[in-house]
Formats: sequence, C-alpha cells, structure tokens
Amino acid sequence: MPKTASNGGLRRSDAGGSAGGSVGIVAPQRAAFDAPLLLQCQQELPNFELVYETYGELNAERSNAVLICHALSGDHHAAGYHTPEDAKPGWWDACIGPGKPIDTARFFVVAPNNLGGCGGSTGPRCVNPATGEPWGAAFPTVTVKDWVRTQAMLADRLGIDRFAAAVGGSLGGMQALQWAIDQPERVANAVVIAAAPKLSAQNIAFNEIARQAIQSDPDFHDGRYAQANAIPRKGLVLARMIGHVTYLSDERMGVKFGRELKSGDIEAAQDVTFQVESYLRYQGASFSERFDANTYLLMTRALDYFDPALAFDGDLVKALASAKARFLVLSFTSDWRFSPARSDEIVDALIAAGKDVVSATVEAPNGHDSFLLPNDRYFDLLGGYLNAVAAKL
Amino acid sequence: MPKTASNGGLRRSDAGGSAGGSVGIVAPQRAAFDAPLLLQCQQELPNFELVYETYGELNAERSNAVLICHALSGDHHAAGYHTPEDAKPGWWDACIGPGKPIDTARFFVVAPNNLGGCGGSTGPRCVNPATGEPWGAAFPTVTVKDWVRTQAMLADRLGIDRFAAAVGGSLGGMQALQWAIDQPERVANAVVIAAAPKLSAQNIAFNEIARQAIQSDPDFHDGRYAQANAIPRKGLVLARMIGHVTYLSDERMGVKFGRELKSGDIEAAQDVTFQVESYLRYQGASFSERFDANTYLLMTRALDYFDPALAFDGDLVKALASAKARFLVLSFTSDWRFSPARSDEIVDALIAAGKDVVSATVEAPNGHDSFLLPNDRYFDLLGGYLNAVAAKL
Repeated sequence: MPKTASNGGLRRSDAGGSAGGSVGIVAPQRAAFDAPLLLQCQQELPNFELVYETYGELNAERSNAVLICHALSGDHHAAGYHTPEDAKPGWWDACIGPGKPIDTARFFVVAPNNLGGCGGSTGPRCVNPATGEPWGAAFPTVTVKDWVRTQAMLADRLGIDRFAAAVGGSLGGMQALQWAIDQPERVANAVVIAAAPKLSAQNIAFNEIARQAIQSDPDFHDGRYAQANAIPRKGLVLARMIGHVTYLSDERMGVKFGRELKSGDIEAAQDVTFQVESYLRYQGASFSERFDANTYLLMTRALDYFDPALAFDGDLVKALASAKARFLVLSFTSDWRFSPARSDEIVDALIAAGKDVVSATVEAPNGHDSFLLPNDRYFDLLGGYLNAVAAKL
Repeated sequence: MPKTASNGGLRRSDAGGSAGGSVGIVAPQRAAFDAPLLLQCQQELPNFELVYETYGELNAERSNAVLICHALSGDHHAAGYHTPEDAKPGWWDACIGPGKPIDTARFFVVAPNNLGGCGGSTGPRCVNPATGEPWGAAFPTVTVKDWVRTQAMLADRLGIDRFAAAVGGSLGGMQALQWAIDQPERVANAVVIAAAPKLSAQNIAFNEIARQAIQSDPDFHDGRYAQANAIPRKGLVLARMIGHVTYLSDERMGVKFGRELKSGDIEAAQDVTFQVESYLRYQGASFSERFDANTYLLMTRALDYFDPALAFDGDLVKALASAKARFLVLSFTSDWRFSPARSDEIVDALIAAGKDVVSATVEAPNGHDSFLLPNDRYFDLLGGYLNAVAAKL
C-alpha cells in the first residue's frame, strides 16, 4: 500500500486565491527500477529512479488515482509545501488540494518528476554508472512515449492498474494524450490542457533559440559543465526569458507592466530600465539557480519530437484509434504558443476517431500560463469534469 | 544640385517579382556636418557624417523628394545594386524603382543610414575623436527625434525644403510619424507602415532578450569588442533569431518550414534537425557577419524609448496637434509584433486631432516582415497614394 504524504492539518491560502484547502506539508518519495530500460532512441539506461509526490488516499478499489504530468520546467512538487517555512507551494497548488478542481478529498494524486528531469529523477545531473561521471549532455534522448512507459512502471509499483485520469497542461497535456494512445486500458480519462498534437515551426523555432542560448554559453562546456564546475547561467537566463515572454500574452504583459519604468528618464534618453526588463532579468536569474541546462535541452527536444501521428502516416485519427479514454480538452483564448486552434486539431481528430470528447476554450488573459492560474470557468470545467468522474468511481 | 545615382541602364528582375524596373547600379554618398550636435540625451557629438543613397531626379521645384526611413537592421542601401555582381538588391528594392510603388520616375528618393547605424554613418564603429578609439558602447543614446533632426539637416544639404513624403515601416514608420510632429512645415505626407505609437511591454521584452543575448556574450567585452579584436557573434546570432521568429507569422513559418527535417529521425529520436532550426542558424550567422552589435543595442533602445505622446501628458492627440502632413497608415493582418490594433491607435489619434488620414489593414501572411515584401493590395495602396501625391506636385 503506497504511503500518502502527511497532510499535517496545514491550511494556507495560496497566492492564486482559488477556493479549497492545501494538501499541507508533503514529502517527495522515490521509486527505484533496477532492470535496464530500453528507450525509444534505442539507448539503454541500466536502471533509473523516479521521484514523485502523492496527495490524498488511494481508495480500497485502487480506482481513484490521478496522474499529474508536468511541463517543461515543472517537477514532482505539484502541490503543498515541503516545510512550513516555504514561501511558495507546488507549481499547480491552485488546482490540487481538498475542494480544489483536482480534489484530493476524492482522488489519490500521483505527481512524478519525469525521467531526464532535474527534480531528483534520473537525469543529466545523475552519475552515469558506466563512466562514474555525471551524464550531462550524454544523457539519452527521452521522448513523451518514454515518459508514459516509465510513468506506467511507477503505477505498477504503486498498485495502480488504471488511472481515473491522466492530467496535464502544455507538454503535460501531450503526455496525457500519449497515455490514451499507448496505455488505453490503463487510463479512463485524459485531460489535455493547452496542448497541441505536435509543435509548429514557430514553436520549434523558439525552442531552438533557447537551446542555442544555452549551448553558446561558454559555461556550457558541451554539456559537461558539472565536470567543469560551472553553470551556464547566462544561457539559462535567456532561455527562461524567451519562455516567459512567449508564455504570457501581449495583453497580460501590458496590464502587468505597460511601459512603467524601473529607473531612468525616457525624455532624457538616460539609463532607462523598464519594469518588464527588470522582471525578466530577475525571473531568468532565479530560474538559472534551480534548473538544469541539460534537462532544459532534453525537455525542449521531447516537445519538438512529439508527434503521435507520425507512426500512423501522419494521421492523428488513426493514431487515436487505440484510445479508450474519455477526453477533456481545454484551451485558452490568449494562448498564442498553443492556441485554441491547436487544441481544435486534437478535438477534431478525436471526433473523427469516434471518441468521447468534451472541450472548451476558456476566456483567459494570461497566455499559455493560463493553464497554471486560477480562473473561474477553467476551474469549474476541470473540477466539474473530474467530480463527475469521481462520482462514478 | 545634388547628384543622382547613376542608373546604368540595368534592368534586373528582383526576387520579389514586383512589377517595375530597377534603379540599377547605385553608389552611396556622404554628407559631413562639422558643427557640434547636441542630442536629446544631452550628450554632444563634435561632428557627424551621414551616408545616403538617392534614386531618381530632384525636380526643378525641388518638390518631389521622398525620404525613406529605415528600420532596426536597415541602412541607406534601399534599392538597386552596388555592383553588377551583387546577389541581392537593396532592402526595399521591391518597393522602390521606376514604375514601383515609390516610383523613381516621379520622385527623388533619399535613403540615409541613420545616425548610430553601422552602414557608414557616424556610429559606434567610428572613432571617438576625444579618445582616438572606436566609440563602441560609449556612443551616445540616439532617439527617433535625433534621427528626424539629422535627416532634416541632410535635407538642408540637399536643398530640400519640404519632403513630398516621409515613408517608413516599423521603426521607419515611427520616424515618419515623428517627422510630421517635429517638422510640420517640411513634410507633406507621412506614410507610416506596420508601426505603433510606442512599444508594448512584450515588444520591449523581446528587445531586452536580444540585448541580453548580445551583452552576455563574452566576446561583447562591455561593448569594447573592437578594441579586443572580437565580435560578439553568438549574441548577434541569437538576437537575429529572435527577431526573425517574431517578425514572421506562425502561419508563414508553417507554410515555409512546417516540421520538415534537415536531418535525423524523429521516430528514432536521433540527431534531429528541423529545417526551421537550420534556417535560423544560417540567417543568424549571416547577420552576425554584417551587423554591429552596439548599433543593434542602440536601435532597440531607440525603439523602446519612442513615445511621442510622453511630452504631451501621454496624450497622442495633443502630440499630433502640430502635424500638417496628410497621413497614410498601413498595417498587416498577420503582424503580431506591430499588430493592426497598434496602427489603429495612430489612426484614431489622428482622427481625433482632426488630421487628414487614410488607412488600411492589408491581408498578408508574412507577419511584421510583410512591410518588406511584395503584395498586390499593399503595393496598390502605397503606389496609388504616392502617385496621387506626385500628380499634384
């Protein structure tokens, strides 16, 4: 029987201001898999570990588990706090907790850090047993299919035959979609938020710029920066800045910053720093302290390569034929990196494949980041859908 | 009497395929101004030079001059070829020439390289007489107002009291707008294309990322890379890649590249390079060979600072009160960096200020780059407007 994280009775209101309580103090757990794992790229990992958190209680029927799939810069710490002193909760705390859209009073929530991540799961920061050195850039390419397979192995370990739902936004939504295709018997519902069936040239281009920023930083050392006792901070700062600007909407940036000055005098054309510049520099610097550059490269590659239709003559309808899940597909009006039109492609293919799908485009001002932020209709839709799922368990 | 560039009888069809002929072989000219110039930032240049090209003939009344204002990465070479062997014509060759929208059979076209540029006008690459070293990053901040003033000094030198039109796209459109405000007696028409009355937070953010990319390149040497015998190529590559992606539309990138591979195998997750990545790297590398990093910084700052309403309590209608020009304001449907809504702000303020303004939003797929590319309606509108101007000269 898997342990659930201690709830500790903590109730903190989160910054997002959504209704519902906190899962409280949580502790990461660890699952080690000792058999070799053959990845899609045909490279083999001799063994691997996944770090994960869980919230809520697995019911006696083991039927109420919900898998949370994280996006590019996410990890296993999706909700709650690690210590009472933590300034910030997990990345999707607004959405996960008792009485929240992903209701931990009803569901047993499993949030792993993906293989190749830098939150503690086996990834580029870990030592390659064959060399005794950190993997760095030599860590094998990992795909969304690999994540689904390793998440299924974690489910085995936790005694979960079938998830009530696989849920994710952005790259996480792509995992939820791949779950429905690759593990049709093991996922009852796929909740695909702010995603796309594959990246556009523009999406790939932004990822490539971020990669170039990291790889051209002299502190990158061809990915062997750990051995060189360096961190490619400047590259990571740039990558994060690009992500930040493109994940927010123009409108939202306007409301948040406008042309407000941090310092200087525009009329005198002297020493001007706009608030938005200062904010981006701060966000970038903060990210560069916590995130691993090789993982960033690996995650953006997984995004670029994601294309479940490719093995089916480019036909997404055929790719979805195997799916047995019901689908909830959500998108946001101001999201220009994964626009509602991209979600429509998924919905249209699901309809043509004869699948059960409900979908909505939510009016939201925060661009791609909308999937992370409280929004009444979004939370009503997500919570309503999942509560209906819970009621039938 | 100013010299006009030799036309040389050359007729080459340009890549854009627009109707009309070429201005042929042209030669840059140079105007030196020996008196000190006090800039808006209150720094003084002891003297300066502007490089410019001209196409067509100034008429006897000196009434048919058109000023071309260039954008971020442009220069004075707007049309024609420098040698018969040139692979590419000037940057706006599709638009400027006999029978083209800016018709050199009717107009005397003046295209200067802006102060602070890297095309030969006084800028960061030039030697600061006070130190005997290249200015580099110590070159004073230059604003759109400074450009208008120095362009007016060039007009004096050429014997042009009043331009029939000041024309520009993007940052060039901002100069055309500022011309109407600052030199109301000296410009009869202002043609403002794909511009905005000031940058949005998102616009500034993209500029800031480009600046950070350049400034964090170790070869930048705090802007003293000439003294260090270095070029911040990697930073310039990144800056150009960011510009390229954001100046094109998602749709256009999709048509141009889609998910086509340059090399590798996605299914095997091995060595994948998408065509769009390869293209961006090539474009970036090419740009880094020709453009000056300090000029790039200076130009983006001029963009960020542009805000003609600022000195008028933030009221663009008041700022435009002085204008006497007629206005043509054009925008493009797929331009998401300077969207039609931004042009509408200009148009609305002109209407409220009681000015003569005509405007159109052109259906065009190429994002912000649309202002550079042939498009039937765009060229009909621009050519039609200017031909009507010519007919009344």
